[in-house]
Amino acid sequence: MVVKEKTGVKNVAVLGSTGSIGRQTLDVIRQLPEYLNVVGLAAGSNHSALFSQIQEFRPEYFSYAGYESAGHSLKSFTRPKYLPLEELAAHPAVDIVVIATSSTAALDAVLAAVKAGKTVALANKESLVSAGEIITAAVKKYKARLHPIDSEHSAIWQCLNGEKQPPRRIILTASGGPFLNYFTERMADITPAMALAHPSWKMGQKVTVDSATLMNKGLEIMEARWLFNVPVTDIRALIHPQSILHSMVEFPDGAVKAQLSPPDMRLPIQYALTYPDRLSNDTLPSFDWADFANLTFTQPDIVKFPCLRLAIEAGRKGGTYPVVLCAADEVAVSLFLKERIRFTDIPAIVEKVLSQHDVVSKPSLEAIKAADKWAHDAALDISGASF
Amino acid sequence: MVVKEKTGVKNVAVLGSTGSIGRQTLDVIRQLPEYLNVVGLAAGSNHSALFSQIQEFRPEYFSYAGYESAGHSLKSFTRPKYLPLEELAAHPAVDIVVIATSSTAALDAVLAAVKAGKTVALANKESLVSAGEIITAAVKKYKARLHPIDSEHSAIWQCLNGEKQPPRRIILTASGGPFLNYFTERMADITPAMALAHPSWKMGQKVTVDSATLMNKGLEIMEARWLFNVPVTDIRALIHPQSILHSMVEFPDGAVKAQLSPPDMRLPIQYALTYPDRLSNDTLPSFDWADFANLTFTQPDIVKFPCLRLAIEAGRKGGTYPVVLCAADEVAVSLFLKERIRFTDIPAIVEKVLSQHDVVSKPSLEAIKAADKWAHDAALDISGASF
Repeated sequence: MVVKEKTGVKNVAVLGSTGSIGRQTLDVIRQLPEYLNVVGLAAGSNHSALFSQIQEFRPEYFSYAGYESAGHSLKSFTRPKYLPLEELAAHPAVDIVVIATSSTAALDAVLAAVKAGKTVALANKESLVSAGEIITAAVKKYKARLHPIDSEHSAIWQCLNGEKQPPRRIILTASGGPFLNYFTERMADITPAMALAHPSWKMGQKVTVDSATLMNKGLEIMEARWLFNVPVTDIRALIHPQSILHSMVEFPDGAVKAQLSPPDMRLPIQYALTYPDRLSNDTLPSFDWADFANLTFTQPDIVKFPCLRLAIEAGRKGGTYPVVLCAADEVAVSLFLKERIRFTDIPAIVEKVLSQHDVVSKPSLEAIKAADKWAHDAALDISGASF
Repeated sequence: MVVKEKTGVKNVAVLGSTGSIGRQTLDVIRQLPEYLNVVGLAAGSNHSALFSQIQEFRPEYFSYAGYESAGHSLKSFTRPKYLPLEELAAHPAVDIVVIATSSTAALDAVLAAVKAGKTVALANKESLVSAGEIITAAVKKYKARLHPIDSEHSAIWQCLNGEKQPPRRIILTASGGPFLNYFTERMADITPAMALAHPSWKMGQKVTVDSATLMNKGLEIMEARWLFNVPVTDIRALIHPQSILHSMVEFPDGAVKAQLSPPDMRLPIQYALTYPDRLSNDTLPSFDWADFANLTFTQPDIVKFPCLRLAIEAGRKGGTYPVVLCAADEVAVSLFLKERIRFTDIPAIVEKVLSQHDVVSKPSLEAIKAADKWAHDAALDISGASF
């Protein structure tokens, strides 16, 4: 049952609609037909899934990465109309752009949406990590709005509701992933199947492996730095295996606020789409005290999980280090998933790429893209040479 | 160190300044001289403590329950000037009235402050429990403000900051008191000294015993009902022995927000005095992950703690039942502290008084006061007859 309120229906474009976050976004929209309407869908591959989504949601526009070259079924549509990705992100018919694609490839679409003054519901970490300063400056200039979709950043955002003073500290919680209690010396033997078996969250492959290395938490620290304008030194990670308490904010008086809920991405997705309203949606889980029976918190082990240390260091140093970290990690995770390198090679490759990088401070978008490309090549080079 | 902001100094009258909450209120004010000034002090007994406070804080006004009859040192003052309690609560020089007295005796002072349009920082539970409908109607009519001081209600209030939708549910946490893991059959042997040894909070005697019987949590459920306009049926208690998470609010979308901090009453007191600002105060505890290492939650045992059941029942039935519950509990706790009755006689007396009461629905202030007096007499009568 949906609580009815007098708000206009918002037109949503979902970029990355066939991925994990994209599909869960469509699950939410399906439940709230009086509030949300799909006006655009975009995918990078998986054209058959996109085809089904188009048949169900009947959007006005769609985008597909291989559209020009591929001669498949998508070309037969007269409606929806095909648009290049950045045109869809900036189209006047769109109110909210959901960025549910992974990797730094989302950057241009994010900037196109921001420059068109859209509400950008952001699930992509890499764009803010790589170009946080450029994106947040553009958000201000073009009066756009950034709504985080990550459960942690959504939690922080919710805790900041109505508060006048900026936070003293942000505490990002991390499930710790499947290897939280694993022996350090056995980490090298972890297989892709083991790394993809996350204990609490259902997510895409890249972010699941990043959760297992704790790189994900490091990226989130950098993301929080830009979303909430808090220095990296005032953001810390805390391991919380139950994934019930999604993050905390400490205020100047010492009070801490937290947001809690069962681990289900549809909740932060819905909040990003309906903010500042909170709408009743029976398909979302509600409070059950048994979920909250025992909440534990420990400090992360940065010796066992060097990716977290590398990310925090890159975040503190700034410049092009964060984009280099992202790109090297993307290459390393992809090689690990192909069983070309070991689990412990992921931080080793990232560290080596970072050590070889000539940093550019206050980088332009071009410098960021150049560093991204350089780091991809360097990571491939290093992994080819050493492994 | 105090963060300086351009706000006017607020003049505070502390009613019940020599009690536990009153003294902690003065501790907070002492740290924030740029924001808060003591304009009035009032005590019901303990004139020597009041004398010292007057010497330190140099208020304009004071009040003392035994002033007319007693010929002691307080009569020698030319400044501060003596005022009857309700006159102090309503005085034009006062911005914020802190109600730190216990029992229903605070009711007239609360109403005097509300009718004068003051900000009322309320630590007294009994007034809202007994006359919540009258007080909240007066708050609306006279444009006064109620700021809760109880840690639980402060937590809920903080979680509601900036939220548009009313809560779906409120979850009040309870430490469970010193007898959480006690055998039910040994409850009759509990002595006042045992009941006064609270595991996490430093509070006055009455509220400490009420915490041990869980009556306190029942009173808080009724208080929350009026403060936040949520039906008693949508408020539940959850045992949380660490007293770190002070309460939770569930919103219509299923998201839960919580406020956490080490158990120190000065934090909610300061927030009630400085709302909506959160001021840095080095004497308040700040976040330490070790405090949050393990947070547990269980359902309360209403067989072992019948006071909680009685309070919830009285809250659901409404009318004069809540004031009768308060009054009977006050008498019973006082008799228990004098070792005149056993610990398990507290709920027995309260239940018997409630069962003998002829309820008045939608009671006037006079009807509430009459029920209060009737219940005091009935409780004394029952305890004298049976024990």
